[in-house]
Amino acid sequence: MQDQKIQIFDTTLRDGEQVPGCKLNTKEKVDVAVRLEALGVDIIEAGFPISSPGDFESVEAIASVVKNATVCGLSRAVEKDIITAAESLKKAVRPRIHTGIGTSESHIKYKLNSTPEKIVERAVAAVSLAKKYVEDVEFYAEDAGRTDNEFLAYICEQAIKAGATVLNIPDTTGYCLPDEYGAKIKYLADHVKGVGNVTISTHCHNDLGMATANSISGVINGARQIECTINGIGERAGNTALEEVVMVLKQHPYLKKSTNVDSRQLNAISRYVSDTMRVPVQPNKAIVGANAFAHSSGIHQDGVIKKRETYEIIDPKEVGVDHSSIVLTARSGRAALAYRMKNIGYELTRDELDHVYKAFLEVADAKKEVADDDLHQIAENRHKVAV
Amino acid sequence: MQDQKIQIFDTTLRDGEQVPGCKLNTKEKVDVAVRLEALGVDIIEAGFPISSPGDFESVEAIASVVKNATVCGLSRAVEKDIITAAESLKKAVRPRIHTGIGTSESHIKYKLNSTPEKIVERAVAAVSLAKKYVEDVEFYAEDAGRTDNEFLAYICEQAIKAGATVLNIPDTTGYCLPDEYGAKIKYLADHVKGVGNVTISTHCHNDLGMATANSISGVINGARQIECTINGIGERAGNTALEEVVMVLKQHPYLKKSTNVDSRQLNAISRYVSDTMRVPVQPNKAIVGANAFAHSSGIHQDGVIKKRETYEIIDPKEVGVDHSSIVLTARSGRAALAYRMKNIGYELTRDELDHVYKAFLEVADAKKEVADDDLHQIAENRHKVAV
Repeated sequence: MQDQKIQIFDTTLRDGEQVPGCKLNTKEKVDVAVRLEALGVDIIEAGFPISSPGDFESVEAIASVVKNATVCGLSRAVEKDIITAAESLKKAVRPRIHTGIGTSESHIKYKLNSTPEKIVERAVAAVSLAKKYVEDVEFYAEDAGRTDNEFLAYICEQAIKAGATVLNIPDTTGYCLPDEYGAKIKYLADHVKGVGNVTISTHCHNDLGMATANSISGVINGARQIECTINGIGERAGNTALEEVVMVLKQHPYLKKSTNVDSRQLNAISRYVSDTMRVPVQPNKAIVGANAFAHSSGIHQDGVIKKRETYEIIDPKEVGVDHSSIVLTARSGRAALAYRMKNIGYELTRDELDHVYKAFLEVADAKKEVADDDLHQIAENRHKVAV
Repeated sequence: MQDQKIQIFDTTLRDGEQVPGCKLNTKEKVDVAVRLEALGVDIIEAGFPISSPGDFESVEAIASVVKNATVCGLSRAVEKDIITAAESLKKAVRPRIHTGIGTSESHIKYKLNSTPEKIVERAVAAVSLAKKYVEDVEFYAEDAGRTDNEFLAYICEQAIKAGATVLNIPDTTGYCLPDEYGAKIKYLADHVKGVGNVTISTHCHNDLGMATANSISGVINGARQIECTINGIGERAGNTALEEVVMVLKQHPYLKKSTNVDSRQLNAISRYVSDTMRVPVQPNKAIVGANAFAHSSGIHQDGVIKKRETYEIIDPKEVGVDHSSIVLTARSGRAALAYRMKNIGYELTRDELDHVYKAFLEVADAKKEVADDDLHQIAENRHKVAV
């Protein structure tokens, strides 16, 4: 059986840019879009054209530059939003309008001050209007994570009838557990009429740290598109991290799902986005953190030196990182010390190693990390004592 | 039915400290331990005593200061490790020795150059030896995530017979999917003789971004202890983040599982650990990131102003954050602008708001964030034009 292709919908430039301090100018956005296309994402959500003249201009510029990926613009279920989005996408080879409305009780009652019937009407009107401009229309049911499944299935069905090609099921508040979110996707895959002709999409937020697991649970249960951002940036605690879902699928071949993303570009694009949008990546971030492939404990170093796979499930080269690193600290053992000593030119006998290791630990307890300079000094001193 | 108590085993000072550049001195470690006890964690893993004289000293100092929490020391299944751990824990009110060995094929063959039979012997010998010193012995089956379930159940059974009170089932390489990890825990809960008298523990790594979801899947399937660190720091991509699992359980009361952690201290201890150990927390980190409760898109701001729960599942005060923040950017809508204008003293008519909003967008397109000073200027100018 061939792998099923999972579409990667990148929203770094829309949901990702909804972060305080992240705003990019048009040129910077075009640069990010060009890199995303080279990375192999299938859809680039370029912005929210009605929100400001700057955003409109950026979507328009990206639409005229990107050739292979679909370019998508966001809109509310509001006439002027949709017309503006269509306008901004005129030059796109593959344009998509993303439109929708809140469907949870909380959104309908408190945010929209409306009724379920009226929400369905607005959803249908929005999709129908978008369909006049483009063939590819994605419908989002905002706060789907907290929306009753039966109502959600009903509104999705109506959206399909109105012409929707993709159904986006966002866990807007990042509340769902993986099994709960997966069950929601499965319910829709099983109950929505016409769902076989459209794509169900995940869109998960990371408020409780489960966006990646939720997205994967979604595709295991029938979704064929994942919405995500580089480094997981986005509103509040952010979105699903593109690099994580891509590598989860790649590292679990038995799931038989793969993406078009070239994983060797992940590290470079992570750094580029972090620098350009000025959102730091913490060192312990999965896949792209500075320490993601660094080993500092003795037990782990010993294992990695013997066989990389004992502590690493991903070859760093696969995500564009040159090599794993062995960092010498007070937690490092004799094996790591001997390995590094050999690398810098000292072949130590067993007795020498015992002696040198003691000196090493004294330095390591005093300093955070032991550098090669320290090692040279320790190694040279061993002769003084050995004599 | 009353909630089941899930034990929180904090390993910030052991697995968390296995991070390049993180090393603390004894005084700093004692300070962290005192805060962890005040936070309400049940077990503090204080260090790996055999690894260096500094680590031994720290475990000893923590053991003599902490009164309510269990203090735990790590050891390999090696005699001198266990004796040293016991020595360092002499003054602890509730001492625990954590000992164990690699159980996956990869660890047995390549790291330990041994056979399954010999590994079981070493595990039993280690637990028996530890049991001579302390009542509370935790056995870890390193790389359990990649260990065959049948062998894992067998070695766990032998560890219980030898006196283990806790079985730690680490996903050492961070490879498992939540369903896979949960199934492993369930297999052990169902098949290991004597498991009813001991505690199964999760210990998940975040290499693919799923540590939190895996830990939660573990407790849903029978584990009663979660091993975790503040901010998720740790080897490579880090460990399960304490703040995330605590809040997942708190926000999903239907799971009927709770912890002794006082969530209102989470933000403060996150900052303290980040500062002391010099590991930055990215702004989009769940629960404790600087932006975890910041809203910058217009749609979201509008919703939050009407009713906080439309976009927030956690009241920021519950994790020790004063309030949500509304950040004005080019993505902000009229509602957010009117709200902030009112807060700084301007009640605008509908027409005034339309006019001012246009001026606001121009400033917002040019700047990343619009400050109150900018708003005062915009508001004052409105009169000039209105006249």
